[in-house]
Amino acid sequence: MIHSDASRPKDECGVCGIFGHEDAAKLTYFGLYALQHRGQESAGIVASDGSQISLHKGMGLVHEVFSEATLQELKGHLTVGHVRYSTTGASNIINAQPFTATHQGCTVAVAHNGNLVNIRSLRNELEKKGSIFQSTMDSEVVVHLLARCSHLGLEKALIDTFESIKGAYSILLMTEDKLIAVRDPGGFRPLCLGKLNNGGFIVASETCALDLIEAQYVRDIEPGEILIIDREGQHSLHLEHSQRRSFCIFEQVYFARPDSDIFGKNVYQSRKRMGEILARECKIQADFVMPFPDSGNYAAIGFSQASGIPLEMGVIRNHYVGRTFIQPTQSMRDFSVRVKLNPIRSFLKDKRVIILDDSIIRGTTGRSRVKSLREAGVKEIHMLISCPPSRNPCYYGIDFPSGGELIANKKTVEEIRDYLGLDSLYYLSLEGLLEACGGPPEDYCKACFDGDYPVAPDKEFCKLLLGTRNACQSTGKK
Amino acid sequence: MIHSDASRPKDECGVCGIFGHEDAAKLTYFGLYALQHRGQESAGIVASDGSQISLHKGMGLVHEVFSEATLQELKGHLTVGHVRYSTTGASNIINAQPFTATHQGCTVAVAHNGNLVNIRSLRNELEKKGSIFQSTMDSEVVVHLLARCSHLGLEKALIDTFESIKGAYSILLMTEDKLIAVRDPGGFRPLCLGKLNNGGFIVASETCALDLIEAQYVRDIEPGEILIIDREGQHSLHLEHSQRRSFCIFEQVYFARPDSDIFGKNVYQSRKRMGEILARECKIQADFVMPFPDSGNYAAIGFSQASGIPLEMGVIRNHYVGRTFIQPTQSMRDFSVRVKLNPIRSFLKDKRVIILDDSIIRGTTGRSRVKSLREAGVKEIHMLISCPPSRNPCYYGIDFPSGGELIANKKTVEEIRDYLGLDSLYYLSLEGLLEACGGPPEDYCKACFDGDYPVAPDKEFCKLLLGTRNACQSTGKK
Amino acid sequence: MIHSDASRPKDECGVCGIFGHEDAAKLTYFGLYALQHRGQESAGIVASDGSQISLHKGMGLVHEVFSEATLQELKGHLTVGHVRYSTTGASNIINAQPFTATHQGCTVAVAHNGNLVNIRSLRNELEKKGSIFQSTMDSEVVVHLLARCSHLGLEKALIDTFESIKGAYSILLMTEDKLIAVRDPGGFRPLCLGKLNNGGFIVASETCALDLIEAQYVRDIEPGEILIIDREGQHSLHLEHSQRRSFCIFEQVYFARPDSDIFGKNVYQSRKRMGEILARECKIQADFVMPFPDSGNYAAIGFSQASGIPLEMGVIRNHYVGRTFIQPTQSMRDFSVRVKLNPIRSFLKDKRVIILDDSIIRGTTGRSRVKSLREAGVKEIHMLISCPPSRNPCYYGIDFPSGGELIANKKTVEEIRDYLGLDSLYYLSLEGLLEACGGPPEDYCKACFDGDYPVAPDKEFCKLLLGTRNACQSTGKK
Amino acid sequence: MIHSDASRPKDECGVCGIFGHEDAAKLTYFGLYALQHRGQESAGIVASDGSQISLHKGMGLVHEVFSEATLQELKGHLTVGHVRYSTTGASNIINAQPFTATHQGCTVAVAHNGNLVNIRSLRNELEKKGSIFQSTMDSEVVVHLLARCSHLGLEKALIDTFESIKGAYSILLMTEDKLIAVRDPGGFRPLCLGKLNNGGFIVASETCALDLIEAQYVRDIEPGEILIIDREGQHSLHLEHSQRRSFCIFEQVYFARPDSDIFGKNVYQSRKRMGEILARECKIQADFVMPFPDSGNYAAIGFSQASGIPLEMGVIRNHYVGRTFIQPTQSMRDFSVRVKLNPIRSFLKDKRVIILDDSIIRGTTGRSRVKSLREAGVKEIHMLISCPPSRNPCYYGIDFPSGGELIANKKTVEEIRDYLGLDSLYYLSLEGLLEACGGPPEDYCKACFDGDYPVAPDKEFCKLLLGTRNACQSTGKK
Repeated sequence: MIHSDASRPKDECGVCGIFGHEDAAKLTYFGLYALQHRGQESAGIVASDGSQISLHKGMGLVHEVFSEATLQELKGHLTVGHVRYSTTGASNIINAQPFTATHQGCTVAVAHNGNLVNIRSLRNELEKKGSIFQSTMDSEVVVHLLARCSHLGLEKALIDTFESIKGAYSILLMTEDKLIAVRDPGGFRPLCLGKLNNGGFIVASETCALDLIEAQYVRDIEPGEILIIDREGQHSLHLEHSQRRSFCIFEQVYFARPDSDIFGKNVYQSRKRMGEILARECKIQADFVMPFPDSGNYAAIGFSQASGIPLEMGVIRNHYVGRTFIQPTQSMRDFSVRVKLNPIRSFLKDKRVIILDDSIIRGTTGRSRVKSLREAGVKEIHMLISCPPSRNPCYYGIDFPSGGELIANKKTVEEIRDYLGLDSLYYLSLEGLLEACGGPPEDYCKACFDGDYPVAPDKEFCKLLLGTRNACQSTGKK
Repeated sequence: MIHSDASRPKDECGVCGIFGHEDAAKLTYFGLYALQHRGQESAGIVASDGSQISLHKGMGLVHEVFSEATLQELKGHLTVGHVRYSTTGASNIINAQPFTATHQGCTVAVAHNGNLVNIRSLRNELEKKGSIFQSTMDSEVVVHLLARCSHLGLEKALIDTFESIKGAYSILLMTEDKLIAVRDPGGFRPLCLGKLNNGGFIVASETCALDLIEAQYVRDIEPGEILIIDREGQHSLHLEHSQRRSFCIFEQVYFARPDSDIFGKNVYQSRKRMGEILARECKIQADFVMPFPDSGNYAAIGFSQASGIPLEMGVIRNHYVGRTFIQPTQSMRDFSVRVKLNPIRSFLKDKRVIILDDSIIRGTTGRSRVKSLREAGVKEIHMLISCPPSRNPCYYGIDFPSGGELIANKKTVEEIRDYLGLDSLYYLSLEGLLEACGGPPEDYCKACFDGDYPVAPDKEFCKLLLGTRNACQSTGKK
Repeated sequence: MIHSDASRPKDECGVCGIFGHEDAAKLTYFGLYALQHRGQESAGIVASDGSQISLHKGMGLVHEVFSEATLQELKGHLTVGHVRYSTTGASNIINAQPFTATHQGCTVAVAHNGNLVNIRSLRNELEKKGSIFQSTMDSEVVVHLLARCSHLGLEKALIDTFESIKGAYSILLMTEDKLIAVRDPGGFRPLCLGKLNNGGFIVASETCALDLIEAQYVRDIEPGEILIIDREGQHSLHLEHSQRRSFCIFEQVYFARPDSDIFGKNVYQSRKRMGEILARECKIQADFVMPFPDSGNYAAIGFSQASGIPLEMGVIRNHYVGRTFIQPTQSMRDFSVRVKLNPIRSFLKDKRVIILDDSIIRGTTGRSRVKSLREAGVKEIHMLISCPPSRNPCYYGIDFPSGGELIANKKTVEEIRDYLGLDSLYYLSLEGLLEACGGPPEDYCKACFDGDYPVAPDKEFCKLLLGTRNACQSTGKK
Repeated sequence: MIHSDASRPKDECGVCGIFGHEDAAKLTYFGLYALQHRGQESAGIVASDGSQISLHKGMGLVHEVFSEATLQELKGHLTVGHVRYSTTGASNIINAQPFTATHQGCTVAVAHNGNLVNIRSLRNELEKKGSIFQSTMDSEVVVHLLARCSHLGLEKALIDTFESIKGAYSILLMTEDKLIAVRDPGGFRPLCLGKLNNGGFIVASETCALDLIEAQYVRDIEPGEILIIDREGQHSLHLEHSQRRSFCIFEQVYFARPDSDIFGKNVYQSRKRMGEILARECKIQADFVMPFPDSGNYAAIGFSQASGIPLEMGVIRNHYVGRTFIQPTQSMRDFSVRVKLNPIRSFLKDKRVIILDDSIIRGTTGRSRVKSLREAGVKEIHMLISCPPSRNPCYYGIDFPSGGELIANKKTVEEIRDYLGLDSLYYLSLEGLLEACGGPPEDYCKACFDGDYPVAPDKEFCKLLLGTRNACQSTGKK
């Protein structure tokens, strides 16, 4: 039983859909498996054999939610899958996706990655017309909108629905016989199309899902595109809009898997390039550079190559970590840091060290890690961050803490350096980051760094989305 | 993962709500525990502390769904609980109750026992106005209707909603601060009010729930009554209607617990009286009468007392039964019968036996049991049934098979006797049954016996409720 | 994790073995299923295909411990199974049976029902010779004794082992290719041989296990017999002894299933006869007699038939009970009684009632039940017990409390009546009980009633068996 | 239910014991958590409060086996814990450790890392004296030996027992009030002593366990030392022997955690040095060097620094991998490789790559990985291994496949290169490896490379340890 945490309506997620393969559910399972880093809270797959629709979803990791037996029950050549993420313990089966609903004999399923910024006014309007809501999911709103337009025919209903929606969405929709992929006009979140060996198709958040099931990458779904795949083939609709491209730069910095290509670039190489540019922007003397594994690994490699300062792995990651719920004893200070990363004391003693990491959010973890290095006898600790200070919340689907909790929102770089206990602290410049990511700088949303939000949110958006009376729900065996 | 079986939309259920006790969730737990016979498929409790609403529900028995921890999370003095029944393996967390929804900042929870007979037209109408549905539950329709009337104020909305609904319903509703109990104008299903030791209240399907938590029985909720309990006290609204009373006589025969009083009568005594009247209606020579335990126990006692024919327990019920999923081997014929009831061979050999049971639905189980007795050496087997032949489906919430599968719908009594392999077979007369149940005969719904349905169902009601495109859903860990 | 409770070394159990059936493990599963009343703490099956031996055991009910998959892994035509009982929450996988061990390349498995009374001196002697022990099971001692005699050949080793053992044992042994059934010279516990449809054999504690798998009862294993079944056929050895027969009379009163025949008698009929003799011994005026279901059911039928006093079911057993671990609230007094048995208040009010039950052990449960009946308005409560007062502990495998906790050990019948709050209390006489059970009175062990122990226990037997330093052990996932 | 695989009697394990801390069980839990890489099959902790001993063990990872509740039941200041490893799915609760037994009122618990090479003759001798065995664990033999010497007093019994044992053992023993650590005269496996903040002590396989609970490293347990810790303090006994030191060099190459110091050296630095020496021994032209993460990471860093060839991470490890049991579809070739490591196609195309890894055992995994790189378009693939060819089985506790399955046992380096599909293949020389590990070369056991076994095994040792009749056992819920 877990309460829904109304302060965290914005979740990062991953989606994967298959059209035209007899093992569609299994391929979707593996696609979600490769996208697990985009959401560990819940997973779900909905399948259709052309007339009958089946759904299975649950709380937990993909491999915990599905078994061979549940996959076999998900019959059909057409599937949509979803993984959902929550940074807190809060999780809620009512909010698990795909979301399905029936209206006048038709069933539609929706899986959503992103965040709608006019959700509040859309809901209010729908409620005024009589809609009731069971969840706090954007997807539920999408389905209501579609249902209310359904008399217009599918394509018109899609256009009308998505033209009324504002914000970030890479959405997969499924009807009994169609797979529909929609990407918002800004293209905040990645979404790509691949071709299966047998001629079928996959649409997924990242290319790493294509790799695992040996699909060939075809192209990205375009910003503002509605791609419809059915027995007749594929065709696309395009939303009318005046929105500039708004690729989420934080996907490159932090969120996407390094082996994925997103927004036309390989993530590993972008991250390595961030390290290289850091080496150009910032000259420090040190015995070596080391990442906090694995988040800083790739920028650290780039930095080492560009600066000539040797790369070392001075802290070791415990690969079995992350799941113990046993509380440490009183005497075990800084336990939560050491249980994940253990400094190699005999190696670090008396060294001058550059730490490379990809972000500082609240600063609390970093502070403990620095303290732990000091206790291991490190002489000098310099920290480089492979992006600018994260000063602003994200309205488009990445679950940053609210502004006040972001350390860079309240403190100067010098104050952060002091708080973390560092000898020095440097952030990659925004120009450097844009150079590392490649492509036209204006194609990125970098609001978390510069506060320039490409799509204005509702007035009420930043408040708790669904009010203080929101039901806390849980489902499942005790 | 279990498919929803669209041929079985009609389910018997149990409800229990508490107002005004700090341990409301725990009392509801025990109330549901006492009502477990009314539904073994899923269980749920929703609680409110006056502002915050929490819900926990899951598939399985009450003690499987809840733990001390989940009950503690269900904070507040106000609760509504539900157990749901399905005669097949089909079950579906999407259909578990209570059902909750939010509309314009208000949350309402619904738990329903019974079956609405104009659900199809209500849904159609709602869908035309834009409603979408996630489940096949009547409760979801009730919430939609309430939401659409909410601008009228709560009491008017309740009246309007329930005056638009036809069929059987003993419903508990909960808002943040009110417990509302509604019983349809026919009063098909039982629903009673009790008083807690501390001054709080309980509303439950049967009095056995009151007994377990030591509440005092106050009165039945009246047919057509809407009882509202809140901090101000209690008050009732009354639905306008011209409906005659329609107490479900099958609750007396079969469904309710023998220690409950329903419709003003004690069930144990009604069942015993059925046996007594059977003894008057039907004279047979035999060495003894025996029930199939425990369903025939009470009528058998009455029959024995009235006829002077000794009562015996010639078959023994295995109390650990009912949960093995291991398939028997080829050599184990009639296994499913013997695993539940084992004949005492040494006792039964060469005896003339009267079997007393409460119903014959499909006849398949009875046939196997008779065969098993023959193999144990019983010489003569006569069977008495404590009600008339069940010929017609129930539209009001008891999950009979459809007409064609009811053996008495297709066969004469003589043909049934022959099919079961009996020496003789007698049913209690409808007059005898009404005499046994007491009260004015016209106060009962006895449609399953005589086909006289007190509330006419929708034209489309008997077809699959929600069409062939209904989604099969499941939730939970694999 | 559950501590072994050294104050309760004596457990009742059930055993079942199969020889000569390809589905031996599955048949054993169902045999144990029918014997579940003899032990609910743990279950285990060991199987052999003639060379390879497999074992699966676990804590819990038979259907919880085994799945189709685990049964399929138990390959072979030869099996031994066991269910173990503990009246307390104490349970311990280390003590689960069958117990297996390897000695000089041979594996032997043992499943034991009963209790050895010279276990302490046998263990001391073995430890002096260098044996070490992992459990507190009698079975482990049996295996040590067998191993130390193994140079003598199997048959001599069996004779030597069992002639050194004193006490009650119905034991099944399995080697790679033999099923061996041994019953102590007193024959305390039942053990019977049946024939499978395919020509194979079953040995089980009670005939109800034979019934479920459709085996034909052949005969009881004789007291003092060692029956060896292998590919060559069957043959028996006989222990030399001067022990008189000592059939446990409490199996007839209480422990065995009513549909079993034990010691040559049907249990249902014995129990009914106890009621009949009670009616002869004890004349009371009352409105009706009623059992505490189901333990008093059969004697109540006999009593009613013999006395002419009508039988009623004034308290109703909740069939879903027995598994809730939720603590009641403060306000729910006598909860543990009412959760199992609910009095029918409207029926019991102002009645004069005779309660029939099969035993009073500590008296606490009975006292609460009587109180609960008084609260339901019963005017007079008379209680009849279908055996004499239980005054003495059992050394032979039934887990009575120690003498001091047996209410009849400390109080007179009048004091017990007063403690329970009864109007009158009568016990069946020992002569009456022996008459009801049939057969020569001297063939029964009735030590729990008269203190005449047919086999003298070790001096140290009554102390904690394995000393204060006994390890508390548990196994399994958290 | 899992069969014990008699072909794999040799298991690597980890041990951790605490003396003198009120949270001993919790500290042991975290010690085992840090040692999880040494054994993932089962975990167990035994605790003593000076008189009462408690044990909990189970199959699975440390965090799966223990909960806060089970840890709280493990009361006392004195504990011994164990993690056990099996490279196959085979696992068996009967073989889980610690192993406990009672003999003449004393309980002893044993946790063992290593492998005894005269186990067969010891067992034979014990069986001749009457011992029986339930498991295939070396620990069970140790307990039998101790029990048989117990009349000599503890210290003499320890000396006698361990002087009769041959092979590798880092053993922790616990009596009610003593923690005893024993390391074999060769010192094959690491074992170190640490001091807790509160003055208590920890003994553990590796220093990473000390780090996690913030204990200070004191010293290694010496080869041939028996260290006894109790309320009186510490004292040591020393086994008489003529055994040379035999530190397992494969711990440095592969098994120990890089943040541990073992045999007086830091593992990370040893592994980096292996890469440096490889760079000296082997000159190759390539675009970059990359490890198979994480096993080759550290040698790759050393190689890159010494050779000047850039380090890259061309394949990405899926951190959520390792637990899916869903079978891939037909079309997903080489799935088991890609699910763990995904090549970055856009980066690898047309490159000349040096792969660095720490070993080639069977060669099958390596072959698939190389194939996968070829498919990603890599032009040249050279592989460097940071140790010599593994040609011989280990008798001392590392679970290599038997000789015939080791690819280097059957094939020349050129044949292996061809089998793997490489452009070139180089192994580090034995001299190079010894130089990298530091210390006198003769202090290492390197039998897996050169076949020079420092302790001769029993004649029968290499056969299946316990014969073909060994029982397959499993325990637990289905």
